[in-house]
Amino acid sequence: MEIRRSPFTGEHALVSPHRLSRPWQPEDFCPFCPGAPETGHGWDVLLLPNRYPVVTRSPPSPTQEELFGAEEAYGQAYVLVETPQHDVDDLSDLPLRQIEKVLRLVIKTQKEAEEDPRAIYFLFFRNKGREIGVSLTHPHSQIYVLPLVPTRVAVEMQYSETWYKERGRCLHCDVVAGETRRVVHHNEHWKSFVPYYARWPHEVHIYPKTHRSALTELTDVEVTTLADALKCTLCGIKNVLGKPMPYILVLHQAPLRQRAPHYHLHFEIYGMYRPDGRLKYAAGAELGASLYTLDTTPEETAERLRKAVAGCVTASGGSSR
Amino acid sequence: MEIRRSPFTGEHALVSPHRLSRPWQPEDFCPFCPGAPETGHGWDVLLLPNRYPVVTRSPPSPTQEELFGAEEAYGQAYVLVETPQHDVDDLSDLPLRQIEKVLRLVIKTQKEAEEDPRAIYFLFFRNKGREIGVSLTHPHSQIYVLPLVPTRVAVEMQYSETWYKERGRCLHCDVVAGETRRVVHHNEHWKSFVPYYARWPHEVHIYPKTHRSALTELTDVEVTTLADALKCTLCGIKNVLGKPMPYILVLHQAPLRQRAPHYHLHFEIYGMYRPDGRLKYAAGAELGASLYTLDTTPEETAERLRKAVAGCVTASGGSSR
Repeated sequence: MEIRRSPFTGEHALVSPHRLSRPWQPEDFCPFCPGAPETGHGWDVLLLPNRYPVVTRSPPSPTQEELFGAEEAYGQAYVLVETPQHDVDDLSDLPLRQIEKVLRLVIKTQKEAEEDPRAIYFLFFRNKGREIGVSLTHPHSQIYVLPLVPTRVAVEMQYSETWYKERGRCLHCDVVAGETRRVVHHNEHWKSFVPYYARWPHEVHIYPKTHRSALTELTDVEVTTLADALKCTLCGIKNVLGKPMPYILVLHQAPLRQRAPHYHLHFEIYGMYRPDGRLKYAAGAELGASLYTLDTTPEETAERLRKAVAGCVTASGGSSR
Repeated sequence: MEIRRSPFTGEHALVSPHRLSRPWQPEDFCPFCPGAPETGHGWDVLLLPNRYPVVTRSPPSPTQEELFGAEEAYGQAYVLVETPQHDVDDLSDLPLRQIEKVLRLVIKTQKEAEEDPRAIYFLFFRNKGREIGVSLTHPHSQIYVLPLVPTRVAVEMQYSETWYKERGRCLHCDVVAGETRRVVHHNEHWKSFVPYYARWPHEVHIYPKTHRSALTELTDVEVTTLADALKCTLCGIKNVLGKPMPYILVLHQAPLRQRAPHYHLHFEIYGMYRPDGRLKYAAGAELGASLYTLDTTPEETAERLRKAVAGCVTASGGSSR
């Protein structure tokens, strides 16, 4: 168990051979339901240590080879069970108050991670849908507390810092303020839009309108309105094609304990159905060359998603605010 | 139709809304078989212009927005039909001589692309398997002639150039020469190995032992032995788990007309089954953070693949050389 780094790209691989031996659960057993061995009863939201983690508090010494370096797989991996109810399809199907509870538990966990000087990065993400490999359908998200900044975030930070140094402005702030054509939803504090530079067919980014570099900087009311932004945006993605869409959600924020005037936290959501309802696969161009292909324009995608979100808000009796 | 660039990562998206209108073929019709409207008869290998390309010789003017830049989707997209035979499972099932014909057609196409000053990069790749979205099973690979260097290659070139400037050596050459533990196959001119820094469960890279930065620099005999390296490596990936494995193959080489002392061409192959035979999905960690998770070690993977390749060579009566 160790973290390897590619000398050709700087990317990291979490090598966890013990994970292969994890047992397969019976089909009708859910480890996240109340009363399961690890869950107990009497909770609304629940943070569980991942039983087969990719990082751990007591990692073994890494191997070393002449040309390559590995480091200790130090950290903590969690599953966040978002509701005791098993048969909820998506986070967006939960009441606003419940989504807010999820967010407050994420923030509490991040604040605890900030206390550990060896913890460098707090990665929150959510995979949704069997078609992208999610085997446990009980609503849950994941947290990795890591000893390094993931490459994708590190690259964004580099580009953002260069822009900031050259122009004295936060590029993210300019993009959020200037975005009008591709907006999908917005409320008092948050704006959801399809980025001009989208990589995936139904990609939406959610930004706070005020510059915040980490989740722990959000004000109390910004957390409340974030629940609305997530619920409305994810509901739009769920409804836009008339069938629930597999998606990936990932939070990009600054490293722990680092205030970054040039880096603005945001959620990236990748809805993986193409407009015709078929799954978009990452293949040679994407995984082999970081070159992305879109069969539609971000502007057209935004228009369809905007209508879908409006339908969600109407259906919920205006509860999105 | 245009190429957009992310100001946060430098990555490009090929936006091709006309592709959505491509018609669906009947299930029993193969557009790559001899006698189909675009193929005709009397060929061993065939290069077809992609009918719904992501780049074209006469692209429209790109849109422009204040904060963002797009460029013309100039270039050429091809499908390379690797055999007239429809019911061949994989490239590795073709005779060595046929694989060599495929390679010589790729090289001929690359030489033609070198003549076009607006063509900057020659991207050759191959997606295999319905599980990763390949709908046409007739053996084929793809070529994009592009007006830019794909980000993944550009990043590798940057890291390689920094290494070269600091140490006066090609990092690739050092890695290839030093690799012994994770070798899967080798012949006189080529070495296949699982990289120390593998990102995917059955990842193998194939390198020429002599420094070559582009396919068009290969000697005649290096092309012949490359056919062997590809056949043996792909056969090992096909056989290692007892069922054909979906994979992505991509060629990384220097930009057109550029001799790079620091950059060494190589094929990257990503076999997408985990050791237990289940598909590995790229999800939140991978697509959202460029952070990869392996359930086994590259050393263990190499050992299993090495045995599988040995079985292929024995089965083919030693024809691998």
